[in-house]
Amino acid sequence: MIQHHPDIEPVKTRLHVDEPLGEGATVGLDHERAHYLRHVLRLDKGNRVALFNGRDGEWSARIDGFGKGWCSLAVESRRRPQAPEPDVWLLFAPIKRARIDFVAEKAAELGASAVWPVITRHTDVARVNTDRLRANAIEAAEQCERLTVPEIREPVRLDQAMAGWDPARPLLLCAEAGPVRPVEAALAGLPPGPAAILTGPEGGFAKDELDGLINLPFVVPVGLGPRILRADTAALAALACWQAHCGDWSAGGADVRPPFRSQESG
Amino acid sequence: MIQHHPDIEPVKTRLHVDEPLGEGATVGLDHERAHYLRHVLRLDKGNRVALFNGRDGEWSARIDGFGKGWCSLAVESRRRPQAPEPDVWLLFAPIKRARIDFVAEKAAELGASAVWPVITRHTDVARVNTDRLRANAIEAAEQCERLTVPEIREPVRLDQAMAGWDPARPLLLCAEAGPVRPVEAALAGLPPGPAAILTGPEGGFAKDELDGLINLPFVVPVGLGPRILRADTAALAALACWQAHCGDWSAGGADVRPPFRSQESG
Repeated sequence: MIQHHPDIEPVKTRLHVDEPLGEGATVGLDHERAHYLRHVLRLDKGNRVALFNGRDGEWSARIDGFGKGWCSLAVESRRRPQAPEPDVWLLFAPIKRARIDFVAEKAAELGASAVWPVITRHTDVARVNTDRLRANAIEAAEQCERLTVPEIREPVRLDQAMAGWDPARPLLLCAEAGPVRPVEAALAGLPPGPAAILTGPEGGFAKDELDGLINLPFVVPVGLGPRILRADTAALAALACWQAHCGDWSAGGADVRPPFRSQESG
Repeated sequence: MIQHHPDIEPVKTRLHVDEPLGEGATVGLDHERAHYLRHVLRLDKGNRVALFNGRDGEWSARIDGFGKGWCSLAVESRRRPQAPEPDVWLLFAPIKRARIDFVAEKAAELGASAVWPVITRHTDVARVNTDRLRANAIEAAEQCERLTVPEIREPVRLDQAMAGWDPARPLLLCAEAGPVRPVEAALAGLPPGPAAILTGPEGGFAKDELDGLINLPFVVPVGLGPRILRADTAALAALACWQAHCGDWSAGGADVRPPFRSQESG
């Protein structure tokens, strides 16, 4: 069961859509989602759901009708306006399937603005299913009350990603080793603004690859303690630490958790 | 492939055992692990592995012989002494199987000293397989170079866990809502020493359960931002933030990441 902000009428479900949202708009759902609403959630004509598209805020919509393989929704009123969100990218060397699904889900929950697979020397995953990553990220965004979905970028080689890098976006390198600063000290030294996190493959970065990264002016090598973390653990630990210090979990963040909610009250 | 401290001869694998470890000791492995060494890792008599038991540090051992369903190891020399570790417990309301496996694995990597399932009002998981949790925690500890394995405690009701609580151990309550402090501010207010983290079930804490927790003198409600995190995400985000600020990821921690390692260099 998803939970809801206390000042908003609860709805049974939240869906991400691509269409523009506004009073009087109509949104159609495809076969899979129509089936989900009707036969899994057992919603009916007249029931309400919440919609968001990453641009127009969150809207309440009424189910207007179901047909064979479709569902039509009448958009009624805005529940929440679109708001600025922290801008932190996650770059990661692709890993095995269950773990990559997990990274996409957790990155969405932890507020990554973009998720970008990068191919390093020792990356032994040949193909990345970005549609699958996107589906996992959307589902997590729907559940965690985000108003956006992380952008899922097409995989590129690490050197290509670095060649076009905007130096105004510091890149926190989760090196499995090297001349690193403890993550909290590194975060305290960052300027406010966009940032990114990079984690390597299970086999680690190649020595010269790591040397090359560390010499880039925008790269900040960070240490995540004495244990050797799996790639997926490092990615989300670094995201959590960034949100706590620089992002919207911090006291200075744009949005802190709203007052009391619990199962009974909402 | 696991990675290794640069000042220690690399070995193919690391195993947690229960037996005492010391020069000249002999350790026997059961059928499953003997099979794993011989037929999965393809190790042979004379090959070396690393052993740890949570008490005697890490030791190098030589495979002395294989038999039908057993393997005998001769303990040779100490690779690393036992060292103090941060003392942070993870209390969590049990969740579905794939996610609970994940929590045990990540808690081990993130350095939790104990993992304790607690049954809350809205916990809808009837039975917790602690053997399975322990197996996941051991595997993660072996891979991440920990010298200990988190203690896996038997499940109890939340009120029972609270009734016997040592008030010298602050309990960070990851409330899905409530009068919380941002996690970083809450961590900055903790005294040095042991701590614990508590996350609720997927359905959240019950209203009176949350009220009761917040009134306990050792409970510190913490906020993890405006998104509604899944229970597993909240648990490991809080652990990561605790390690970064209070634990062995911090500049003041006992052990920071050792110098440069990479695949080529060992």
